[in-house]
Amino acid sequence: MHRIENSFEPSRRDVLRLISSAALGLPLASSVAHGGQVGRQLPHEGVFELGDLRLESGVTLPNATLGYKTHGRLNAEGSNVILYPTPYTAQHGDIEWLIGPGRALDPDKNFIVVLDQLGNGLSSSPSNTLPPLDRMTFPTITIRDDVAAQHKLVSSGFGIRRVALVTGWSMGAQQTFQWAVSHPDMVERIAPFCGTAKTTPHNAVFLQSVRSALTADAAWMDGNYKDQPVKGVRAFSHVYAAWALSQPFYKQGLYRQLGFISLEAFIAGFWEKRYARRDANNLLSMLRTWQLNDLGGTPGFGGSLERALGAITAKATVMAGQTDLYFTPPDIEADAAVIPGARFRVIPSVWGHMAGAGLNPADSQFIETEIKALLAA
Amino acid sequence: MHRIENSFEPSRRDVLRLISSAALGLPLASSVAHGGQVGRQLPHEGVFELGDLRLESGVTLPNATLGYKTHGRLNAEGSNVILYPTPYTAQHGDIEWLIGPGRALDPDKNFIVVLDQLGNGLSSSPSNTLPPLDRMTFPTITIRDDVAAQHKLVSSGFGIRRVALVTGWSMGAQQTFQWAVSHPDMVERIAPFCGTAKTTPHNAVFLQSVRSALTADAAWMDGNYKDQPVKGVRAFSHVYAAWALSQPFYKQGLYRQLGFISLEAFIAGFWEKRYARRDANNLLSMLRTWQLNDLGGTPGFGGSLERALGAITAKATVMAGQTDLYFTPPDIEADAAVIPGARFRVIPSVWGHMAGAGLNPADSQFIETEIKALLAA
Repeated sequence: MHRIENSFEPSRRDVLRLISSAALGLPLASSVAHGGQVGRQLPHEGVFELGDLRLESGVTLPNATLGYKTHGRLNAEGSNVILYPTPYTAQHGDIEWLIGPGRALDPDKNFIVVLDQLGNGLSSSPSNTLPPLDRMTFPTITIRDDVAAQHKLVSSGFGIRRVALVTGWSMGAQQTFQWAVSHPDMVERIAPFCGTAKTTPHNAVFLQSVRSALTADAAWMDGNYKDQPVKGVRAFSHVYAAWALSQPFYKQGLYRQLGFISLEAFIAGFWEKRYARRDANNLLSMLRTWQLNDLGGTPGFGGSLERALGAITAKATVMAGQTDLYFTPPDIEADAAVIPGARFRVIPSVWGHMAGAGLNPADSQFIETEIKALLAA
Repeated sequence: MHRIENSFEPSRRDVLRLISSAALGLPLASSVAHGGQVGRQLPHEGVFELGDLRLESGVTLPNATLGYKTHGRLNAEGSNVILYPTPYTAQHGDIEWLIGPGRALDPDKNFIVVLDQLGNGLSSSPSNTLPPLDRMTFPTITIRDDVAAQHKLVSSGFGIRRVALVTGWSMGAQQTFQWAVSHPDMVERIAPFCGTAKTTPHNAVFLQSVRSALTADAAWMDGNYKDQPVKGVRAFSHVYAAWALSQPFYKQGLYRQLGFISLEAFIAGFWEKRYARRDANNLLSMLRTWQLNDLGGTPGFGGSLERALGAITAKATVMAGQTDLYFTPPDIEADAAVIPGARFRVIPSVWGHMAGAGLNPADSQFIETEIKALLAA
């Protein structure tokens, strides 16, 4: 097993080391079933070599890589696969709250693949790509590029043909919608939560504002920093903090549930820390992916979000956080309304967007109950 | 008349020139009634000398000044006074949409005094105060300091004893609540709109984030800039843009009603321009005033917001914008619920906080109808 420390972005050297040990056939995932059409010998945590990845922009990313981690075993029928793409800035170890015996994603029953988004510091990113495509010259990534890369790992890497469920939070939800549209014959169920199929204009304004906060710091140096632009990233985290929760969350001081004794301690100990461990250019790269996301841009739908959503054949449960300020319930409900037979559920929570982050037990239970019901359907 | 250009902050020299011409008895406000207990000879637009202003912090601001502009004539009974304090960053010429024949604040009927907040570049501010209290050493101002300064102008300057109405938007609403509590025997009616009597924790987090965005720019130089920190102020304006309107405003592209052909044009032409004309330290000074605001801190109420609101004797109509993201309807309703006999009304609008800015005719009409009804009561 290749344990990846989540509190920093691995350097190019670390990434190459991981790839090498995988290539050498060192510790392999005991969790992957062998034989038949499904299951290949890949380590259960690692970085998969994608080769040259042709992006939607037309640019080819040479020697692209995709981070991932698996939980559980693939069954003989290949019918127990769950894909769980990471949300903005998260790495595969950051979102394991949903995974565990008895949890919604149960490794005793399912073969769960947590998929690292491009730009997250484990998959190909500004921070780990070689010149001339490093830093701010790293190409624009779309959610469809993420899904294309993930599909390569899932199909070529693991030999998977059927996916019982794709689920994800936030940008993970955006990838979930895309999986259903890009691979309708493969994906049986989707449970996107706290995310829209197309980034709304207001959401884009919010994202532009965090970008402006970060890049106001001259230490960013148009991406050519030696040391991270600490003040800019701190400003970024402050803007984020106000959006990611809700007015009543702060009024009720619910950060105390997370062990923070004051508002100031929460901002510093949770939000500043959350982004200080990330690479600034990676933050900006994934921000652009989010800003540009439009499921309607999938080839074959003439740019129509409604037509793309309407083509989804997977059983769908779509969830929204009641007080989410940027992936709002009305916006998500509008998406769900176009998906044939989709179930739309509102998480009754004052935790804003963070209702889907696994922080508040009641919210997590709500989400897990819905996912379990969908898996049983 | 002393015409003050609103598109820039006057220098200390400009301010002194204004004071001098007032002291010389040059053009006086024809609108001010003379004789009796009410009305003094002051120009109808100018900067009033407050003398030494003792602030709540204990600091004395020497030779403090207060900008203002009047509309209409004070009647013989002194019964037609309306006070209209400025909101965040605005100067008295910026909020005249509510004033005019047939409008809610009617100069044919009322004597309207528009009062410039301390820190707004016309009243004493970081930008126009002499060392050692200039720039970031400018003392902390509270909303009670604003009201104390305004009371001095209104009572000593104009000789006013009764105020028929105090009304204001946003931080203007915060000053409105304070007028009612600090001068209950003077204030007959209040119509605060889109503002709370105490700044909520979430609102404070938003304000901290705009501060962090501005100060991430090294060109701010801890306040000692020669040229304005352009990038920081631009980041500030971007963060503000996302908060001050609403998700559906952007989704529906309602900026087109303001003549902007695209989202980008709106952000640049409205928001960037709005703050680029202001002094950065002034922006930060008023931000602190807003962040710290707590009506409950008024002496005599033991720190209790509820007791302070409960002591209001003025007839009150309190309004909230339905989609306001930082002065939210539930927060404002909670304030109104404690004021004896207060009427609470929600402006049915998707213009977010800007419902109270006089930009959308339907919202403005709603507000004006309520103010007219209150004035008639």
